[in-house]
Amino acid sequence: MRILDFLVMKDKILLGHGSGGKMSADLIKNIFVKNFSNSVIEALTDSAILSVGTSSLAFTTDSYVVDPVFFPGGNIGKLAVCGTVNDLAVSGAEPLYLSASFIIEEGFLIKDLETIVLSMKDEACEAGVSIVTGDTKVVKKRQCDKLFITTSGIGILEPKNDHIATGSTIKAGDKIIVNGYLGDHSAAVLMARNELNVQSSVISDVAPLNGLIKNAMAGNTIRFMRDITRGGLATILAEIVENHNFGIRIYEEHVPVRQEVKGLCEIFGFDPLYMANEGKLVAVVSPDSAESVLKKMRNHKYGKHAAIIGEITKNHPGKTVMESIIGGNRIIDKLAGEQLPRIC
Amino acid sequence: MRILDFLVMKDKILLGHGSGGKMSADLIKNIFVKNFSNSVIEALTDSAILSVGTSSLAFTTDSYVVDPVFFPGGNIGKLAVCGTVNDLAVSGAEPLYLSASFIIEEGFLIKDLETIVLSMKDEACEAGVSIVTGDTKVVKKRQCDKLFITTSGIGILEPKNDHIATGSTIKAGDKIIVNGYLGDHSAAVLMARNELNVQSSVISDVAPLNGLIKNAMAGNTIRFMRDITRGGLATILAEIVENHNFGIRIYEEHVPVRQEVKGLCEIFGFDPLYMANEGKLVAVVSPDSAESVLKKMRNHKYGKHAAIIGEITKNHPGKTVMESIIGGNRIIDKLAGEQLPRIC
Repeated sequence: MRILDFLVMKDKILLGHGSGGKMSADLIKNIFVKNFSNSVIEALTDSAILSVGTSSLAFTTDSYVVDPVFFPGGNIGKLAVCGTVNDLAVSGAEPLYLSASFIIEEGFLIKDLETIVLSMKDEACEAGVSIVTGDTKVVKKRQCDKLFITTSGIGILEPKNDHIATGSTIKAGDKIIVNGYLGDHSAAVLMARNELNVQSSVISDVAPLNGLIKNAMAGNTIRFMRDITRGGLATILAEIVENHNFGIRIYEEHVPVRQEVKGLCEIFGFDPLYMANEGKLVAVVSPDSAESVLKKMRNHKYGKHAAIIGEITKNHPGKTVMESIIGGNRIIDKLAGEQLPRIC
Repeated sequence: MRILDFLVMKDKILLGHGSGGKMSADLIKNIFVKNFSNSVIEALTDSAILSVGTSSLAFTTDSYVVDPVFFPGGNIGKLAVCGTVNDLAVSGAEPLYLSASFIIEEGFLIKDLETIVLSMKDEACEAGVSIVTGDTKVVKKRQCDKLFITTSGIGILEPKNDHIATGSTIKAGDKIIVNGYLGDHSAAVLMARNELNVQSSVISDVAPLNGLIKNAMAGNTIRFMRDITRGGLATILAEIVENHNFGIRIYEEHVPVRQEVKGLCEIFGFDPLYMANEGKLVAVVSPDSAESVLKKMRNHKYGKHAAIIGEITKNHPGKTVMESIIGGNRIIDKLAGEQLPRIC
């Protein structure tokens, strides 16, 4: 990029500001958190943790702009419900109520809208949540791309789970677990765009994880959870250790990635650690809970390929290091720039 | 419209589906409420009324797509905060927490985003709410028009105010009050689009109404409130009487409309009864509370031009009738089609 381009571009919103990685974090910090300043938003958790009356609530929102609207394994509506359910559930909350707001491009087929709404209904049913309120805006052709959905959600949080969103109890020795193959969602959406003439049978992993999480939490000590969406596993791990006196060590050979996705990553130059998922989470658990959490995840349909991929360590504080299959060590940082716009 | 056009169009989303009028109501009923079916969404209130723990909550969401993003008297961010605060407040709830989700077109100026965020901060501050969580998505150029914001809100609702969102206690003899001039927001946005070479000094009425509402409710019997946005006063009045054994009678000479807006309506062929507002509400109040509510509204900065415009009547059940200045009677129905797309 020439210097003049850079000077012009730095005043403007770039695709990277929506990546879920480093540029997103900077925008959130310098524009949103700075101005909306309050202790809840400053916690930078996926769900805000609120006191309302005598209850503790989790409250979250996400806009979905995935392109294309239909992809192998799901559609934008399924994504919107699962994404919001998962944001609440990884905070340790029980998801209860969702809102859904639709921005629709004039000319969008009503039968496609109904298909999408029906799959929202199915996912809400599976997750045990109710969609209780909504809004519809219609804009002219070329003022939005087909359909955007914003879902917000409310869950109830038991006080003993208050720490899960922030990870405030993480300590050295804790184990790091993911509930299955990374990268399936990104790969499926990429294939659906059909920009390169590559065929694949990979389908999105989009799923509501609150059932799996409830099972895994029962009787176990969970320190932290986060769903692995934009920015990928790498960005979350880098955020966990940021400004802390512990580091993370993970082992490439234990990180579950489907052979087919590995192949696609080689073709497209992607790294599964930075790919978005919509049915995957990372959990930090106490050493004595690790085997039990793993077993419970593997017994659930959304956790069959769960794996312990590493641990919290006193070494290299503030850094996440991956020991590669061929033996070297690589520092894992947040996603820089944008890997795949409109993945969710 | 030729028959062939009609056959093609009826399968597609039209601008009118986002009007807030009759087509919106049909879409909501036939697609959203039918599929998401639960008792909360079926109430068709602006805010969903929920039981969470031992509390009653109001929960609402709205997407804002106003064009242009900046207009006399406000911007999309001010609109998003006030709109959600007002949806909660007219349900009788005390607004507490907001989420804000941004869909931004690549290339949008960061300084414009910051101006918008600053005015969201100011409105949240005035309304006494905290913006506690959010999301940012960025799409490529021409995949959205500059900036869309979706806000959701949570408020706490005292059980004694449960009936205000549904209007279940409305009865013949109740008075109908609006808190000031109708049509200012629509007129201001229309002028900002500058499509016709007409000059005007009208500014949007966008404002958070929870303070005014709190004052008006104290010691008075409020049966129902609704903020007068898309679809205008007419659509709300038609909805109030729909399927009920009472009607509404309003008096044109008492409906407050600024002289300048009347003039613009004549030029553009608009009807102030169908125009969107962002700082106006209609309240149905018991006859013995009417003068007190009126006085309290007029003592508030957002209610100086409040007026009693009519009453609930046993006559013409299911119909809203306006007695015009020149003496005739006119039936007031919901907005048909779309008057002004992207007004909010």
